[in-house]
Amino acid sequence: MVQVSVIGSGSEHEQNAEEIGRLLAGRGATVVTGGLGEVMAAAARGAKQAGGTTIGILPGESRSEANEWIDHAVVTGIGHARNLAVVASGDAVIAVGGRYGTLAEIGLALTLGRPVVVLEPGWQVDGTQHATTPAQAVELALDACA
Amino acid sequence: MVQVSVIGSGSEHEQNAEEIGRLLAGRGATVVTGGLGEVMAAAARGAKQAGGTTIGILPGESRSEANEWIDHAVVTGIGHARNLAVVASGDAVIAVGGRYGTLAEIGLALTLGRPVVVLEPGWQVDGTQHATTPAQAVELALDACA
Amino acid sequence: MVQVSVIGSGSEHEQNAEEIGRLLAGRGATVVTGGLGEVMAAAARGAKQAGGTTIGILPGESRSEANEWIDHAVVTGIGHARNLAVVASGDAVIAVGGRYGTLAEIGLALTLGRPVVVLEPGWQVDGTQHATTPAQAVELALDACA
Amino acid sequence: MVQVSVIGSGSEHEQNAEEIGRLLAGRGATVVTGGLGEVMAAAARGAKQAGGTTIGILPGESRSEANEWIDHAVVTGIGHARNLAVVASGDAVIAVGGRYGTLAEIGLALTLGRPVVVLEPGWQVDGTQHATTPAQAVELALDACA
Repeated sequence: MVQVSVIGSGSEHEQNAEEIGRLLAGRGATVVTGGLGEVMAAAARGAKQAGGTTIGILPGESRSEANEWIDHAVVTGIGHARNLAVVASGDAVIAVGGRYGTLAEIGLALTLGRPVVVLEPGWQVDGTQHATTPAQAVELALDACA
Repeated sequence: MVQVSVIGSGSEHEQNAEEIGRLLAGRGATVVTGGLGEVMAAAARGAKQAGGTTIGILPGESRSEANEWIDHAVVTGIGHARNLAVVASGDAVIAVGGRYGTLAEIGLALTLGRPVVVLEPGWQVDGTQHATTPAQAVELALDACA
Repeated sequence: MVQVSVIGSGSEHEQNAEEIGRLLAGRGATVVTGGLGEVMAAAARGAKQAGGTTIGILPGESRSEANEWIDHAVVTGIGHARNLAVVASGDAVIAVGGRYGTLAEIGLALTLGRPVVVLEPGWQVDGTQHATTPAQAVELALDACA
Repeated sequence: MVQVSVIGSGSEHEQNAEEIGRLLAGRGATVVTGGLGEVMAAAARGAKQAGGTTIGILPGESRSEANEWIDHAVVTGIGHARNLAVVASGDAVIAVGGRYGTLAEIGLALTLGRPVVVLEPGWQVDGTQHATTPAQAVELALDACA
């Protein structure tokens, strides 16, 4: 089953992240996130609304930090180094908003050759694709997995 | 949903691991493993035979190294350091056979306070519980999660 | 003793990296790198020319992959996740050239609040300082440590 | 230069760890530890008393958690997963006391093929060598590096 990682942060991007999660689940993709709040929670919430499956790859040492929409919690205990696992576990990656942690994840994803779609407005990095709507982001990501 | 990590190695232990996977899935627990061969593959295979769900936490940078019974592949890219994530992601841990990597995982699990059940014959470590059959191992592990 | 991490890649940037290593060592700073080739090797080589001390934080499982100018090899075994350790171990970070791995390191450094100086031409990321010469890069980095 | 990792915990073992650090430094070996307290601090203190060099590989995100006898602090940010780097960075490993974290490190060291010397009383693990005095532990460890 296709796995797509949704990364990012910023409460102003939650509505887009939720829509992306919903659309990915509707297309049968498992949604992978970092398992915490804001964009991560919204993407997982959207996926669950559409009956999908969610994986949360957590930085700490306890399952309890996962948001309530995570089906399968992976407890890494390695802090920010878990960003590598978040993007490596996606057949493609969609970035929604985000600050420096998201930039690091984009860099790691591209290092590993994972396709990265950035929803506008977002980080401008050569080698990524850009989408202007959640639907387009999902389309580009799933095309890149094919 | 309860998650139980099954760790270990050694082809002579595969039958026991498969039985443990089957019993865990029958009891509704998700089976977490390191996603590769031998004990890891057998536990996942057993879980799938019983209609369960499996997570494989891989050491490398590609999903392709996962065995065929893994539903959800987590690609960590961190080599042996992924052992921490394997045991941390279990509400309890069952060890089946195994060499030094398994010993390291037992040590990490106990460091994090995860209950550890060792199926005999196996590593003798203070702080673990011992089981003589797959059924007893599953019983002890699920009791420890409760 | 102050530790400054020098990150980056690209053989065309080696001369600048070597000059930065030399200047850092001349100012008494320990030079931290990822321990491999190109910019990492050049920075360490420069530091040793000036009688400095070098630390190489390696991705693999063997000291043998360190370049010959590394005094102290840290063998992490965690692949690209060692990028976090490279930047976290610097009181400041200087980026010289570099591709996606360097971008990831800049993102991780900024996530942790480490000051980052980018030698032009290089990645354009808000929150970094920019230098046009090796001497200015070293000056800005050491000022940021103070 | 030879690097020897000293692992363990327990305040009752500090005197032995300090003696081991002193002897290693006297023989020209760099002492690698996890950089925190008890055995880790004692080994580094001993090494500095003998004019040696010390590396501390820290679990957190800040140099400030290093004990005062650490010359070179490596800030990994990966929690217990840094145990892998501690043992991988030693050409040999000496265990002094220790609880589950030390057991995990012994398992990881043996997984990577690093020679492990356990100072009695300590963990009993097949594949390790045992020493009854600090001097013997250092002798066995340095012999194993040769």
